Amino acid sequence: MFAAVRTRTIARTSLLRAARPVYKTLGSGTHAGLFSRYYHKPARSTAFKVLTEGDLRHFKSILPAETILATPEIGGTADPIELDGFNADWLNKYRGNSQLVLRPKTTKEVSEILKYCNDQGIAVVPQGGNTGLVGGSVPVHDEVVLSLRNMNKIRSYDELSGILVCDAGCVLEELGNYVGERDHIMPLDLGAKGSCHIGGNVAANAGGIRFLRYGTLHGSVLGLEVVLPDGTVLDNMSTLRKDNTGYDLKQLFIGSEGTLGIITGVSIATPRKPSSVNVAVLGVPSYEKVQQAFKLARRRCGEILSAYEFWDASCMGAVLKHHDLKSPLSSDFPFYVLIETSGSNKDHDDEKLGALLEELMEEGIVEDGALAQDETQISRMWSMREGIPESLGKTGATYKYDVSIPIPVLYDVVGDIAARLEKASLFKPEEQPGSDHPVKLVCGYGHIGDGNLHLNIVAERFEDRVTNIFEPFVYEWVASHRGSISAEHGVGLMKRDYLGYSKSPEMIDYMRRIKNLFDPKGILNPYKVV
Amino acid sequence: MFAAVRTRTIARTSLLRAARPVYKTLGSGTHAGLFSRYYHKPARSTAFKVLTEGDLRHFKSILPAETILATPEIGGTADPIELDGFNADWLNKYRGNSQLVLRPKTTKEVSEILKYCNDQGIAVVPQGGNTGLVGGSVPVHDEVVLSLRNMNKIRSYDELSGILVCDAGCVLEELGNYVGERDHIMPLDLGAKGSCHIGGNVAANAGGIRFLRYGTLHGSVLGLEVVLPDGTVLDNMSTLRKDNTGYDLKQLFIGSEGTLGIITGVSIATPRKPSSVNVAVLGVPSYEKVQQAFKLARRRCGEILSAYEFWDASCMGAVLKHHDLKSPLSSDFPFYVLIETSGSNKDHDDEKLGALLEELMEEGIVEDGALAQDETQISRMWSMREGIPESLGKTGATYKYDVSIPIPVLYDVVGDIAARLEKASLFKPEEQPGSDHPVKLVCGYGHIGDGNLHLNIVAERFEDRVTNIFEPFVYEWVASHRGSISAEHGVGLMKRDYLGYSKSPEMIDYMRRIKNLFDPKGILNPYKVV
Repeated sequence: MFAAVRTRTIARTSLLRAARPVYKTLGSGTHAGLFSRYYHKPARSTAFKVLTEGDLRHFKSILPAETILATPEIGGTADPIELDGFNADWLNKYRGNSQLVLRPKTTKEVSEILKYCNDQGIAVVPQGGNTGLVGGSVPVHDEVVLSLRNMNKIRSYDELSGILVCDAGCVLEELGNYVGERDHIMPLDLGAKGSCHIGGNVAANAGGIRFLRYGTLHGSVLGLEVVLPDGTVLDNMSTLRKDNTGYDLKQLFIGSEGTLGIITGVSIATPRKPSSVNVAVLGVPSYEKVQQAFKLARRRCGEILSAYEFWDASCMGAVLKHHDLKSPLSSDFPFYVLIETSGSNKDHDDEKLGALLEELMEEGIVEDGALAQDETQISRMWSMREGIPESLGKTGATYKYDVSIPIPVLYDVVGDIAARLEKASLFKPEEQPGSDHPVKLVCGYGHIGDGNLHLNIVAERFEDRVTNIFEPFVYEWVASHRGSISAEHGVGLMKRDYLGYSKSPEMIDYMRRIKNLFDPKGILNPYKVV
Repeated sequence: MFAAVRTRTIARTSLLRAARPVYKTLGSGTHAGLFSRYYHKPARSTAFKVLTEGDLRHFKSILPAETILATPEIGGTADPIELDGFNADWLNKYRGNSQLVLRPKTTKEVSEILKYCNDQGIAVVPQGGNTGLVGGSVPVHDEVVLSLRNMNKIRSYDELSGILVCDAGCVLEELGNYVGERDHIMPLDLGAKGSCHIGGNVAANAGGIRFLRYGTLHGSVLGLEVVLPDGTVLDNMSTLRKDNTGYDLKQLFIGSEGTLGIITGVSIATPRKPSSVNVAVLGVPSYEKVQQAFKLARRRCGEILSAYEFWDASCMGAVLKHHDLKSPLSSDFPFYVLIETSGSNKDHDDEKLGALLEELMEEGIVEDGALAQDETQISRMWSMREGIPESLGKTGATYKYDVSIPIPVLYDVVGDIAARLEKASLFKPEEQPGSDHPVKLVCGYGHIGDGNLHLNIVAERFEDRVTNIFEPFVYEWVASHRGSISAEHGVGLMKRDYLGYSKSPEMIDYMRRIKNLFDPKGILNPYKVV
């Protein structure tokens, strides 16, 4: 009894206190050197044509000069270093060797490029903001990079219905600012928002931190404009919330990772901006209680619950070390939860969230908590959660797995992998810095409401003796719990060989038939997905 | 000023008053005789085999006897009248001539039936609750009817995540009751809930009255089990909210109206049951103000707004006449709106809705309103809205169009069609009963938040001189406003020839290719959709 009362007292004090100011000082980038070419690279298909000076001449005849980057190898004048940012992903893990980058400005240009490439058998990789995590947006070999970055216009916005129509190359954050000035928000938000393109988000079926409230892009995308490999433009740019006229073809392109067609335009429903947003960070003693708190949050906050994120002590350690952030809580906990509510009435929201937090304390589910008092504190709390990937990247070479698992067993996989690594003498959980175990951290964070865990293993470097411990073990583990080996990051190059862990042979067979239907020559984003 | 004040005074009194008790006395069915075979019936394809006694023997070898209904024409013993309910739709508008109904109990049986039919070239129409409105669920000629009604088991339910897995033949209302006892609701609701099957809902991509809040089935369906025409079982019964492993094939079957495969199992996310539900009916002087009220409702009620339905005076007249319901309002209005809120805190919801209603009155947007005081009154208000289709059916032969149109011009189509009919001397708006104009009503109702209008024209009987006035005019009208000729009812047999009004030739071409990929012999639900 005494302990419970004490916890409650501490907790309530802490809750009444504003989150302590913290200062975000980002470092100078990830340890790029660690992220060497560690992945299985399939051999180049001989079916694809090797680019010639004649091909470059053709592209020059259909595109403005400033939209072409070609190396001397194919008769161009660009220093190959200029193509670096298109050839490698942002983690510098996947790297191709393209000699040609095309940045068309119109759908017609995209169509002309693809028609030519299809006729000639030239492989093409479409690229948005290049923020993917599975090697889907960079060439594997010498594919032509077709970047959408010059297609970045808003085509229309209807403030009554909240329906936005725009080019695929619009940056998510810029769209957020645009609709934000018009009292709406984008239905998705993610850490990469400052770089990622809406077309890439759709092609990858991005999830992110608003999924709990606003759901999947399969629901909020209303229409797409897609260019097929043979140059056909599929105009399905509906601005209607309901349209049951035939098969919903656009759904196939959502999550197809640029392997069926190139998305050039997007029509998407944007929700009204909530007039009240609250964020709290909680310290939780066990994963069991993380779940209990989630259940209670759904009950008490119902329709205003807009995010429920969690991370473990290892993630918190990395964030506090590398971001120079301070925890808003009074001590350390095994787990941390970030709850966000968004609603239309501040008094009501405060009352609901306050009652939830009080109940969580009284029931002993949560041991400490801090409630943001203003927008600055809200954004600091979010940057704590969103800073995790970068902090882990600064800690070492990060193996990233993005899985869906039934919530009750979701965190077990972290412990199981840590135990396997420990048994193999590659990892020691409570180890001090300076030891010679190659694995530094085994940790998890994610969107618990969606059953989505980001499992990360951080090591000195990528090496087989480490990888072999948890690959394919992690996929087998997920499959045995009927989970998904890719919750939101997609398949890309990274998981193509593992698709069978989440999909039946019949499903994969029909995926291949669909690929063959839209892209019979296989020129579009080859070596990936299926 | 005086008028405004007076309106406000009346209105507030009315709001404080509970909705007057009304008693629902349903009549004895629709005027079945009116709904004669008025539609274009394509010729029977000679590609399909005519059933033989040998085929019946085969089906008897793979199915229990009680699951087969066969007429003497093919060697069976069933009175053809027993097949009537399978051969005709519920409005008795579409009618086929099937001699064989199969009601398998397992996915394996469905697979064996389809494999045989595919091998033999026998056409098949899948049938759920047979509540469709476009002739999609009944045979056109002698197709075998494959009814899912014997596949009606709940397979699993997870109360923590709210994820339901069940057979396709489960009745929507029964599922609602089941999850309702477990503190959840189905994410869709519609008038036909007492008969329609969840598999049929998914195959038709049903919308309904919860769409505004819980969105499309493309978002809430998590997995499907589908039997393809060749007997292949596509097991995509995921129970995960997020799964980005390859193309999302299940999306193709949502809204495919049984033409690509037969859905045998459904996994669907069910939202938590709101602990507080409020319903109000409002009297509104113009369509302009119906829109203004919607805008304000979205702002003031935000996350708790769960339905915003409207209907016009003609609909109200029919409901009050045929259902013996009494209006909860003190006088008649050109338009009526039903607002529903659903939330987790009754006090908060009452306060939000109360403030909205007061503002609507004060601004003169709404002239009268009644707020339901208990569940009985809530259900009476809903039965007023849901009784419209049946009331119109009792009034006469009803031409039903279900369209999506941008909200600002949504109701214009009703006036335009009334004017055309009037000009052709077929309709007179304010006419007294007993005249000889064949058209009795031109009216509209629907889900304004979704841009979805149900346009109905009620006549003495179906006849060409009437139809020709508004068909294809209505499709042209919708196309010219970039709307959809089918918001939620689907295409079926009724709109197959009109698909081009809403989809481009390239889109239709690829729909046909998809059809050909999954059903190369075209045995599944022929003559429909594409």
